[in-house]
Amino acid sequence: MASKEPEIITDKNQMRKWSRAMRSRGKTVGLVPTMGFLHDGHLSLIREAHGHTDLVVVSIYVNPGQFSPSEDLSTYPSDFDGDIQKLRAVPGGVDVVFHPHNLYDYGTTNNPSVNNVNEERDVGVVSCLEQGGGLGHETWVKVERLEKGMCGKSRPVFFRGVATVVTKLFNVVDPDVALFGKKDYQQLRIVQKMVRDLDFAIEVIGSEIVRESDGLAMSSRNVRLSPDEREQAASISRSLSRAKIAAEKGRVNCRELRDSVVKAIEEAGGRVDYAEIVEQESLVAVEEITSPVVFCVAAWFGKVRLVDNMEINM
Amino acid sequence: MASKEPEIITDKNQMRKWSRAMRSRGKTVGLVPTMGFLHDGHLSLIREAHGHTDLVVVSIYVNPGQFSPSEDLSTYPSDFDGDIQKLRAVPGGVDVVFHPHNLYDYGTTNNPSVNNVNEERDVGVVSCLEQGGGLGHETWVKVERLEKGMCGKSRPVFFRGVATVVTKLFNVVDPDVALFGKKDYQQLRIVQKMVRDLDFAIEVIGSEIVRESDGLAMSSRNVRLSPDEREQAASISRSLSRAKIAAEKGRVNCRELRDSVVKAIEEAGGRVDYAEIVEQESLVAVEEITSPVVFCVAAWFGKVRLVDNMEINM
Repeated sequence: MASKEPEIITDKNQMRKWSRAMRSRGKTVGLVPTMGFLHDGHLSLIREAHGHTDLVVVSIYVNPGQFSPSEDLSTYPSDFDGDIQKLRAVPGGVDVVFHPHNLYDYGTTNNPSVNNVNEERDVGVVSCLEQGGGLGHETWVKVERLEKGMCGKSRPVFFRGVATVVTKLFNVVDPDVALFGKKDYQQLRIVQKMVRDLDFAIEVIGSEIVRESDGLAMSSRNVRLSPDEREQAASISRSLSRAKIAAEKGRVNCRELRDSVVKAIEEAGGRVDYAEIVEQESLVAVEEITSPVVFCVAAWFGKVRLVDNMEINM
Repeated sequence: MASKEPEIITDKNQMRKWSRAMRSRGKTVGLVPTMGFLHDGHLSLIREAHGHTDLVVVSIYVNPGQFSPSEDLSTYPSDFDGDIQKLRAVPGGVDVVFHPHNLYDYGTTNNPSVNNVNEERDVGVVSCLEQGGGLGHETWVKVERLEKGMCGKSRPVFFRGVATVVTKLFNVVDPDVALFGKKDYQQLRIVQKMVRDLDFAIEVIGSEIVRESDGLAMSSRNVRLSPDEREQAASISRSLSRAKIAAEKGRVNCRELRDSVVKAIEEAGGRVDYAEIVEQESLVAVEEITSPVVFCVAAWFGKVRLVDNMEINM
């Protein structure tokens, strides 16, 4: 397989310049935003991007704006050299890896008072960004209803951080198409709603979950599971699969379906954060499955929080 | 003077298409966002735009997202035909008037539950948009620190609405330069901060206030003043001018300067909402003038709320 060497761009202005040059030549650009430590889920997004646009940009950036200080920003896995090797080998390759050092670095400000954003913030809605490195960043994009449920409940700054960094990436990379994995289902719907509400000229495509052989959804966080936890974690997809089959056979009571999944994960040794059956677009919880839904789960195994979901199309 | 007929575009996609076509021909685009009922302040922004870009777009759109239900959305003055006549006569003319019917119309949704955004909103942060016409719009851009003070205190949904609609206009019109009047000083700083924080590739230019012969800052709302109120309203600029001269002569105690302005406006018959002396960039209040500041005032005359300000460059 021919391998293609991606151009590595770290500077925002250089990234924008590249995009504008390509657009002026009539080329379309696809963006796959990632936090690095790439796995087959990411690579499948890149393969899919090649079906939509002439050129593909992969961004690799661990966004401090979506982690709270109590979360795993400092232990989030990274392997930039390994990522580049994988990107070289993916069919079609990638044209640019956008790898900024700090997306919130706006140069020095001559007014130190504007940096003290923390002072006036409510306790509990502060991300790692405000703890340093933000240089007075204070603009946040909020998708108010969709960001409240599920992952938003236990991670109050998460989706605000995601919507904001995605807006920044959209404005810097200026893509025609952006691809997100369905594993982070709520994130996908939030980005799609944001693109609609803010009139971005970008098509957002959700790509199917890629799974390990035992069904575990691929995630950069999986490497942090111990061998025991790794085995236990397969209970999520196993129980979701069983629930999906049961629903398709007519067991449409959501409480029963949720109870069965929670029980299976807890018996395996996990701790369920939430297990909800919601409408696919609105993410509104339903009591009985009568239309297309998605069954979303988040669960802890040791110190690792995993999410997964399955669409049930009735 | 040769008059130029502006192209009137009401559709978002058509607007975007026009901008992309112009960009592909190497033309630069300037945007002057307005709510219509144009006066010489707006026209000076257009004249200034011609100095920066090849083409000029004026948007005319009264944004329900920045009015609370208790404010003057329904009585906000409008005169589209008169506006077009003024735009024909402005030197250099304008290339496009972007006049959308409803910037928040995303077509019908097949899921009515997503429209009930109100239910989960906090009381007191709902704009006219959520009262109808929003079709489930739920994404807001918030410039958290800058939007809190001054006008943000008495108009809690205002700047959220401004930042959001400006983001939408930026994404639809895709300008190289956008021009805002300094009359709405806090708005200007919020838009500039938002552009920086969200990495928009747009230069935001603040243009000097245009005043009536007696000093009153031009505003579309001025027509709603009675003859008496109109006369009283000149007290704002008159007292600000006096304070500016006093400061430049060494009277730098902000409490004294503010007291003098409040007293003058109240003696004239106005009701002061706020009178604050703040740093020009950060809008942080100061007690003594030792560096460039801006003296910002909002005051009611009858049912009309006016804002004005003067920069004091020490």
